[in-house]
Amino acid sequence: MKASELPPAIARGVSQVDFQVDYRTALCFIVALFVGGWQFGVFGLLGAAVATLTAVVLGVSSDRVTGGLEGFNGTLIGVALVLYFDVRWVTVLLVIIGAIMGSVLTSALVALLGPYNLPTFTAPFCAVTTIMVVGAPAFERIWRGRSMAAPPSAAYPGRELTFTDLWQGLFNGVGQVFFQSKWYVGLIFLIGLAFAGRLVALSALLASAVGIVVAIVLGAPAADIGAGLYGYNAVLTGIALTGTFVVLSRLGVLYAVAGAVAATVLTAFVTDFFKPVGGHTLTWPFVIVTWIFLAAVPAFSGLRRSPT
Amino acid sequence: MKASELPPAIARGVSQVDFQVDYRTALCFIVALFVGGWQFGVFGLLGAAVATLTAVVLGVSSDRVTGGLEGFNGTLIGVALVLYFDVRWVTVLLVIIGAIMGSVLTSALVALLGPYNLPTFTAPFCAVTTIMVVGAPAFERIWRGRSMAAPPSAAYPGRELTFTDLWQGLFNGVGQVFFQSKWYVGLIFLIGLAFAGRLVALSALLASAVGIVVAIVLGAPAADIGAGLYGYNAVLTGIALTGTFVVLSRLGVLYAVAGAVAATVLTAFVTDFFKPVGGHTLTWPFVIVTWIFLAAVPAFSGLRRSPT
Amino acid sequence: MKASELPPAIARGVSQVDFQVDYRTALCFIVALFVGGWQFGVFGLLGAAVATLTAVVLGVSSDRVTGGLEGFNGTLIGVALVLYFDVRWVTVLLVIIGAIMGSVLTSALVALLGPYNLPTFTAPFCAVTTIMVVGAPAFERIWRGRSMAAPPSAAYPGRELTFTDLWQGLFNGVGQVFFQSKWYVGLIFLIGLAFAGRLVALSALLASAVGIVVAIVLGAPAADIGAGLYGYNAVLTGIALTGTFVVLSRLGVLYAVAGAVAATVLTAFVTDFFKPVGGHTLTWPFVIVTWIFLAAVPAFSGLRRSPT
Repeated sequence: MKASELPPAIARGVSQVDFQVDYRTALCFIVALFVGGWQFGVFGLLGAAVATLTAVVLGVSSDRVTGGLEGFNGTLIGVALVLYFDVRWVTVLLVIIGAIMGSVLTSALVALLGPYNLPTFTAPFCAVTTIMVVGAPAFERIWRGRSMAAPPSAAYPGRELTFTDLWQGLFNGVGQVFFQSKWYVGLIFLIGLAFAGRLVALSALLASAVGIVVAIVLGAPAADIGAGLYGYNAVLTGIALTGTFVVLSRLGVLYAVAGAVAATVLTAFVTDFFKPVGGHTLTWPFVIVTWIFLAAVPAFSGLRRSPT
Repeated sequence: MKASELPPAIARGVSQVDFQVDYRTALCFIVALFVGGWQFGVFGLLGAAVATLTAVVLGVSSDRVTGGLEGFNGTLIGVALVLYFDVRWVTVLLVIIGAIMGSVLTSALVALLGPYNLPTFTAPFCAVTTIMVVGAPAFERIWRGRSMAAPPSAAYPGRELTFTDLWQGLFNGVGQVFFQSKWYVGLIFLIGLAFAGRLVALSALLASAVGIVVAIVLGAPAADIGAGLYGYNAVLTGIALTGTFVVLSRLGVLYAVAGAVAATVLTAFVTDFFKPVGGHTLTWPFVIVTWIFLAAVPAFSGLRRSPT
Repeated sequence: MKASELPPAIARGVSQVDFQVDYRTALCFIVALFVGGWQFGVFGLLGAAVATLTAVVLGVSSDRVTGGLEGFNGTLIGVALVLYFDVRWVTVLLVIIGAIMGSVLTSALVALLGPYNLPTFTAPFCAVTTIMVVGAPAFERIWRGRSMAAPPSAAYPGRELTFTDLWQGLFNGVGQVFFQSKWYVGLIFLIGLAFAGRLVALSALLASAVGIVVAIVLGAPAADIGAGLYGYNAVLTGIALTGTFVVLSRLGVLYAVAGAVAATVLTAFVTDFFKPVGGHTLTWPFVIVTWIFLAAVPAFSGLRRSPT
């Protein structure tokens, strides 16, 4: 692999979070991160770069590296750790350690999931970040006076749902994949997705809406819905199941809706499950649901996996 | 598949919880559920029907559908959710969502466990119900003033073991597979098992006894023993390991006893593990123990798997 | 298998905890356990014997038995349970039940991990001991007035790191694999490792140092570092990745260092994760990290698995 191939590989390491390789998508995503806050852009790229370089040094096959498949978990590790542990030198160290761990875990999962034809998705990011966040209180230098991040609903318990929650939640569901909770940042991500294809952007928006509807019907707090917290796992699941990994069909769309509903229900589960130990929801619901929904496809004569 | 094949498929979806397909067993089980409470019968059948129909719509192979293998997790999801969330419209919605999720998870596990020749057992039910119960407090409409169900021992701490605990516990160990805690309901289930074969009923009864003995020796609370809470996982493990999935032999019986002991020990573990997040024990101990005990069989020259 | 082959098989069941089969290593380890406390020696050998005998009775292939691969999880189960539940008859019973469960789980994992060419490591010990310790409060006869063991740092919060912590921590990192926290017991284990090969002892010592450095940099409590609690998982990971399961090379050493770092970070995670339910860290971090690092090797052209 040539050195000149590294920058595009790292850029694709940002867009691959949403399964995309188009360079315009990648640019939009990077812009969105910087609009969300310079630290998200810098630490996200740091994570993607360290993860990608680790893969190169260890000798991962070059098509995975250039496709950005070795970088995207590093991106999210960088963004998540700077969010939880602030801009500090120890955070830089943690992102480097985390991205290396995530890189090894990626290759391990490629081997373990290969026989079942399942991608790693963001599982390495989820695992490494959960390990760091749950373990952090044991380390004085990381934790120092920090406390568990509370969900938006903690500040506004019992608040009524407003129209603002609805439309901002729709965009935030797209942005929260990268921990962003400003609606216009979500919109930039959505524009990036549109460069990858109209279907992708449409799937994302509809899945975000499905997440919101399920959350309203079951009675989730309004502030969390408005922040997009019940949408982002549905968004990733929705994109994955409509055309990306499952061939598009009428039944396939229903299947994707079921997946988005399941991801929303799992969001509440993962959040509550990790509460006693201070873990975060991350994209665990998407990973679990989409693995299950893809693993099940061969048993169903009505559905087909996309050729990879 | 013809529409006329659906009702027997759904009925077998009740008896397959205990690995049985005999229609008399299925009828006894359905009667037992209604004797336990009309809501258990109705929601159990609802869950079995939705799960079976989902499998049909998605195109699962018809021998699995007609054998009831696509329905039994739905049955338990229905019974469990009406127990935890009462007779309400939101519970109907949850059972439908849960049965669909359970159906997809069943097909995913069939694919994932296939190479190891392991059945899904009640894992889809355990997973879906745990997700629903742990996640429920996040949803106002589901939770509304509800609190975690306390075990019987909470009301009678330190009570002495009585003869009534012993003999009722023996039958309740059979009934608790379906969350039933009246001894005569357990007896109806046992009669149903007898229709499937004398060995099956005997295994169930002996395994229930093993669970009680282990619980007494280790010092579990009398009220929980009497309610059958330390027996039902041993019962399922016992039936599975004597003749059903392992060829019957002298060593095989010892192996089944070891499995029943392990399931009883795991009952305490799973109960305590889920306590901080409000999860329930369900049949996790049986699933974990029996998967392990079956996966190990090929390594043992003294034991053999039953031909399927 | 002849009866005379049993004692050496059981002895190797002690040294296999550190992947070694040399009889001098085994003798040193047994001596170290007795120096640590007679109960550790007796219960460790009891666990190894029960586990090995279970494997013989069930008919496991004799090369696994004579190599000590069927005994080492039993050894640790015996040592751990006598540490947590004291010298009592109920502990003897628990060790017997636990060693049988661990033996079956070992064979199950051999089958499940076989396709990926991963050893069981101490996973059966970790699983069985976690099950016992988390489940114990449910059983009056086991628990009786017991409380969760507190880490050394609980007694000395905020104490400064001393030179004694450093050099004793280095040896304790080797001894804590067997729950031993006296530096000279760790030294006897280290001498045992030296009989197996200079590289093995060197790897152990360096990995222990890596664990200490990472713990200091991230700010772990001094008392825990001195007790070796941040070193023993790094020690096992270090030995496993340098020559034992991965061919030694310059990149391989870097890989092993990354593994030791990851094991130290995971130590904090596992400790915090199990806190709400009273579980212990055990060697979970080593098992998880080393499985992942070995599973990833085939994806890396720069590394190679050792021939087994």
